[in-house]
Amino acid sequence: MSPVLDAVSVIAAKRDGCELTDEQITWIVDRYTRADGVAEEQMSALLMAIYLRGMTDREIVTWTQSMIDSGTRMDFGELRRDGRPLTTVDKHSTGGVGDKITLPLAPLVASFGVAVPQLSGRGLGHTGGTLDKLESIPGWRADLTTAQLYSQLESVGAVVCAAGADLAPADRKLYALRDVTGTVESIPLIAASIMSKKIAEGTGALVLDVKTGSGAFLSSPDDARRLAKTMVSLGTAAGVRTTALLTDMSTPLGLTAGNAVEVAESLEVLSGGGPADVVELTLALAREMLDAAGLPDADPAAHLANGRAMDTWRAMIAAQGGDPDAPLPVAPHIEVVRAPTSGVLRSLDAMAVGVAAWRLGAGRAVPGAGVQSEAGVVLHAKPGDTVTAGAPLYSLHTRTPGAIGGAVAALDGAAVISPPGSATEDDSRPLTGPLVLDRVTV
Amino acid sequence: MSPVLDAVSVIAAKRDGCELTDEQITWIVDRYTRADGVAEEQMSALLMAIYLRGMTDREIVTWTQSMIDSGTRMDFGELRRDGRPLTTVDKHSTGGVGDKITLPLAPLVASFGVAVPQLSGRGLGHTGGTLDKLESIPGWRADLTTAQLYSQLESVGAVVCAAGADLAPADRKLYALRDVTGTVESIPLIAASIMSKKIAEGTGALVLDVKTGSGAFLSSPDDARRLAKTMVSLGTAAGVRTTALLTDMSTPLGLTAGNAVEVAESLEVLSGGGPADVVELTLALAREMLDAAGLPDADPAAHLANGRAMDTWRAMIAAQGGDPDAPLPVAPHIEVVRAPTSGVLRSLDAMAVGVAAWRLGAGRAVPGAGVQSEAGVVLHAKPGDTVTAGAPLYSLHTRTPGAIGGAVAALDGAAVISPPGSATEDDSRPLTGPLVLDRVTV
Repeated sequence: MSPVLDAVSVIAAKRDGCELTDEQITWIVDRYTRADGVAEEQMSALLMAIYLRGMTDREIVTWTQSMIDSGTRMDFGELRRDGRPLTTVDKHSTGGVGDKITLPLAPLVASFGVAVPQLSGRGLGHTGGTLDKLESIPGWRADLTTAQLYSQLESVGAVVCAAGADLAPADRKLYALRDVTGTVESIPLIAASIMSKKIAEGTGALVLDVKTGSGAFLSSPDDARRLAKTMVSLGTAAGVRTTALLTDMSTPLGLTAGNAVEVAESLEVLSGGGPADVVELTLALAREMLDAAGLPDADPAAHLANGRAMDTWRAMIAAQGGDPDAPLPVAPHIEVVRAPTSGVLRSLDAMAVGVAAWRLGAGRAVPGAGVQSEAGVVLHAKPGDTVTAGAPLYSLHTRTPGAIGGAVAALDGAAVISPPGSATEDDSRPLTGPLVLDRVTV
Repeated sequence: MSPVLDAVSVIAAKRDGCELTDEQITWIVDRYTRADGVAEEQMSALLMAIYLRGMTDREIVTWTQSMIDSGTRMDFGELRRDGRPLTTVDKHSTGGVGDKITLPLAPLVASFGVAVPQLSGRGLGHTGGTLDKLESIPGWRADLTTAQLYSQLESVGAVVCAAGADLAPADRKLYALRDVTGTVESIPLIAASIMSKKIAEGTGALVLDVKTGSGAFLSSPDDARRLAKTMVSLGTAAGVRTTALLTDMSTPLGLTAGNAVEVAESLEVLSGGGPADVVELTLALAREMLDAAGLPDADPAAHLANGRAMDTWRAMIAAQGGDPDAPLPVAPHIEVVRAPTSGVLRSLDAMAVGVAAWRLGAGRAVPGAGVQSEAGVVLHAKPGDTVTAGAPLYSLHTRTPGAIGGAVAALDGAAVISPPGSATEDDSRPLTGPLVLDRVTV
């Protein structure tokens, strides 16, 4: 009645809780990517069935491999500096509010002679995109040819650029579909999406920053841990040395969430200063990456203090057309939100801050839309700080003053302040937990 | 961030096992039907979530009502004969192999002065379509205007015709989507699909023939019973007097599966003969319908015997342009398949016969394709009959001899014959079970 493989039979098998065969997975990912015999509505139904039925480890490996096979693989094995092969280490974060860690981290690790390719997509939603942040630097461009990417890895060591269209094109199509069909938050699909791109990219080692908490993709720690384990297994199976840190995203990282404001904060870190949490996470991830690169004794804190990381940053920005000395854009409208009461700031919700920054113009609602370089939220206090009634709590930066009302509404209730000396329930809540919650290896 | 209602939030709610609100259901069915803000891929994901998560009774009622509201409702309340209001009773079968019951049943019930509107869709798949069967009668046409339908109900009483495009258009769109996304066999969606059309049609009473067994849509009796109960509840809630018979479809009904061959068999029943099972089911459904029409003492067997049903049949066919006296088309190629051994035919699989008829050209693989009037399978034995090695078991009728090989393959193993006097396991299997398994009322 039907050929050996057809879309409805694959959908029905997953729907009924069967494990899909390698042949079924390879066939449907390939045919869907080429729009040959598998329609968008059929893949939508399959994605929902996968969301609700899950995938076995073997299915995830095959699904990821099929996505890799949908495009071309890169190979960093030929990279040389001074005639010697370069070690490559990549890092991926599942995304968080104020997560600018890539900006100081990539040049920091590269300053030890390691190649750090950071191929990135555009941000969508409340967590922002690394490319959007760097594009607030006058002249800087995200689009490099593969030859330019290789050359910059050999000369500077650090590259943050847009992923080419031929890197796991199945993922591009699938991600857009998941976004409109309520199938984003599926651990197998998230793992396959991230790892297909990283494996196709050809990195030798990979460190994952898997976020958990209100501002993360997956708010539950159990889900985040499962995602981390799945990705570490996938990387390892593909011959990529992979580890993951499970990190807290219940409150924003640092004091900024937006574009230019996050670059400015990253420059503080590269200058040896910056917020303690941003420094802590940058160093934790740098140690993981340097260890994976065979440099377990490297001291990344020294390269923040002595300017070596900043030197690499300047070279990295300049290599991509940016002016590291140009002033960053500043928003024409800055609205200050003040503390309603005095007391201790017990918590500050990451998701609320992310949504506020997004509404101010720092993020995009639809793919392809522009973002405001100047837009974002600057925090004047972090959990644990004492605040005084009427003192600034947040500054809202935007080019579009009409957006301020929505941002203020998003922040309503985000900050929990308990009066000094009070014995409310809130007092039992930890002000700040550890930032790095766990390390996940094979 | 999002309007009060958007497709992703409705999909996510069902995905997460929540009960959808009336507002959510009404919104998404309406917007999907009008292609305004709800895309095919979004509805596909929702249908899979409904398939796997189910729907509550309230959700099903609202979903059905939303499908009814997508088009116009008909009203048979104005029908008159000799100045008196006509009672309308409709019948719907979930579809089975050799299920030609509508053909003798509609004129039989109408011969008692009851109006029987049988608005039907085209067959798709192995169970065939009533319109396809009647179209094998020279001149007969399925497409009537609403005025012609009303007029024929008043004059003849029985009408079998194509459902208008404005009768629950949401169902037309949803059914096409379910067909390609592996979401057909969902009890809530099947119930809503059938009942939206029947309620929109405006019948006063409805008798459902819900099939169970290998040749049925839902092979498990439990699923069939749940479907029957769901539909009876939906009809009753909408003010339609609704009952259901649960009937066996493990072996084909009668001795024919196809188009013209089923019409010929129906004419035998209308002439007072025909296979016992076709007569039994025709009478059982006729009694249900006559009872629902307020004629509990009517004797349908008498009208088969005395020609009253045949008179109404002839009027019904003629009213729609058909010639009741024209010879039916006969296939140019007839292949006889013979019994491999002698013994008792213990079972004959309905699905296999349905697939064989479909492959011979009696059904269509894609909507809009034509069917062969002449094509089908004629059985020479039914379970319980004694067969002799080499005697005809099936005749395969087709216009396309190349299709015979596939039909023979479909029938491989379909007939289980046990040698006379043998004491195999098969002997413990009932030769024939009851045809009407249960009656379902509110």
